[in-house]
Amino acid sequence: MSDLPSQVTIREVSLRDGLQIEEPISLDAKIELLEAVVATGVREVEATAFVSPSKVPALADAEQFAAELKRFSAPHFDVEFSALVASPNGARRAIAAGLNSIEYVVSAADSHSRANVGRGTEEATVAIADVLRIARDNEAKLEVIVATAWDCPFDGPTAPQRVLDIVTAACDLGVDRIAIADTIGTATPRRVGTLLTQVQQIIGDTPLGAHFHNTRGAGLASAYAAVQAGVTRLDASVGGLGGCPFAPGASGNIATEDLVYLLRDSDIDTGVDLDRTIEAAGVAQRLIGHELPSSLLRAGDRIGG
Amino acid sequence: MSDLPSQVTIREVSLRDGLQIEEPISLDAKIELLEAVVATGVREVEATAFVSPSKVPALADAEQFAAELKRFSAPHFDVEFSALVASPNGARRAIAAGLNSIEYVVSAADSHSRANVGRGTEEATVAIADVLRIARDNEAKLEVIVATAWDCPFDGPTAPQRVLDIVTAACDLGVDRIAIADTIGTATPRRVGTLLTQVQQIIGDTPLGAHFHNTRGAGLASAYAAVQAGVTRLDASVGGLGGCPFAPGASGNIATEDLVYLLRDSDIDTGVDLDRTIEAAGVAQRLIGHELPSSLLRAGDRIGG
Repeated sequence: MSDLPSQVTIREVSLRDGLQIEEPISLDAKIELLEAVVATGVREVEATAFVSPSKVPALADAEQFAAELKRFSAPHFDVEFSALVASPNGARRAIAAGLNSIEYVVSAADSHSRANVGRGTEEATVAIADVLRIARDNEAKLEVIVATAWDCPFDGPTAPQRVLDIVTAACDLGVDRIAIADTIGTATPRRVGTLLTQVQQIIGDTPLGAHFHNTRGAGLASAYAAVQAGVTRLDASVGGLGGCPFAPGASGNIATEDLVYLLRDSDIDTGVDLDRTIEAAGVAQRLIGHELPSSLLRAGDRIGG
Repeated sequence: MSDLPSQVTIREVSLRDGLQIEEPISLDAKIELLEAVVATGVREVEATAFVSPSKVPALADAEQFAAELKRFSAPHFDVEFSALVASPNGARRAIAAGLNSIEYVVSAADSHSRANVGRGTEEATVAIADVLRIARDNEAKLEVIVATAWDCPFDGPTAPQRVLDIVTAACDLGVDRIAIADTIGTATPRRVGTLLTQVQQIIGDTPLGAHFHNTRGAGLASAYAAVQAGVTRLDASVGGLGGCPFAPGASGNIATEDLVYLLRDSDIDTGVDLDRTIEAAGVAQRLIGHELPSSLLRAGDRIGG
């Protein structure tokens, strides 16, 4: 058996990745979901994205929603709120809105990068320096997320070296965190273990996260493989909400409650309460108005779990 | 990384475990599903169960369906058909119907055993000898399946020693195969690895299989953990059909197409064609008349897979 970490940090992404493919919901509904999510005990929440409102109408209220985050922040709560950006301009918007943790996404697959942000991988990688400068000038953290790290919806398999090149560039600049994302839900445990082990070898002490979708059923298997490979940060979404509107076939982040169940059984502490996470998944399902792909929301915890 | 086996045998269980919780379908419909399943290239098919027709009406036609298997058998096809039984009488029925591969199920959890077959675990274990005698007298193979190996729907966690005791008894008698079953879909990879490693240590060369349900989302993660622990036989069901009518909350065997996708990506040969398995899942969904929980049936293979 592999040695497993004793602790894994879950970042709750329902409010960003979870909502972005859905029909827009009201600001009040988002606040209700946020309250349910914060009550689970999760310490990191990806709250929104500062991207084109015409491309992602569900997050067009990023500035308004960011203003609501203050009452869920220290000293009342011990939660770090982050926002995803795809350009230096997005980073400036996030900072202006009061965020102090930024995720900048770079697609390792060139076609996905162009479809997603209108720039190729190389140009998006060069811009890491600009985003980092904005973060540093404002005492904000910066995480670089490598998207389409295993497969591109247009080009097929992503060459691992393309991922490693982005990670190397980001680490050379001194970003605070790296995350590797299975944007379209094609990853499987062996490919996950192989790539993340390679990434570990070049990032030194930089914290490493991973992001999976359950599109082909292997999301939790991939998350567990990531943990076996030494990853201690995982993204998940209550109810399994989520997808990428620019990646055909993408659907459903791994469900936070299903992940918490699996990690608890592995004696890995997440600080997240399972019952409250199932409740938050129920809130998400009610607010969204259609059935969500969560397993625990249907089946519940096991007896004696 | 663990060493993975180069080959895994998938046993297709849609026609038994897949159908048993569903409204009964016609003999013609079962034959159509069987044709689709055999076309996938799978080498082992759990065809039916010889159990109480009043308890499992969906399999009340076991004798008639068994008669149809002959034209799918050698020399035309290289497929082994098996049937599940829960008593010596069931074994006699299976033999009389022409089956030469029998699965005898023993619940490791006493309450589940009594609810399922009206006998406790000890009594069911003692009967292995009777079932084996029937098999040997008729040159049939015998596999012992240990059900509720991780959790009981009534009692909670199953003590691992209860599983090991059944396995020891079966191996001492010289049965042909052992399988360990997560009957109610509560298993998670770490608990799977721990128990199956213990089982491996006592069974010698007896082939070991595992059976998972995806009820709590961890079915594929558990199957991969089983393979990492050295298991080379896995049950799966096209479309993710399946469940146990006597185990509240149980739903959905792991989907064959999702498993084939994951194993292919791990360079593990199954001899099963992915496209034809997705087709068979589509046939199952049409015949059953409601949406099945398969991921690949919705999302398809990845580009360049």
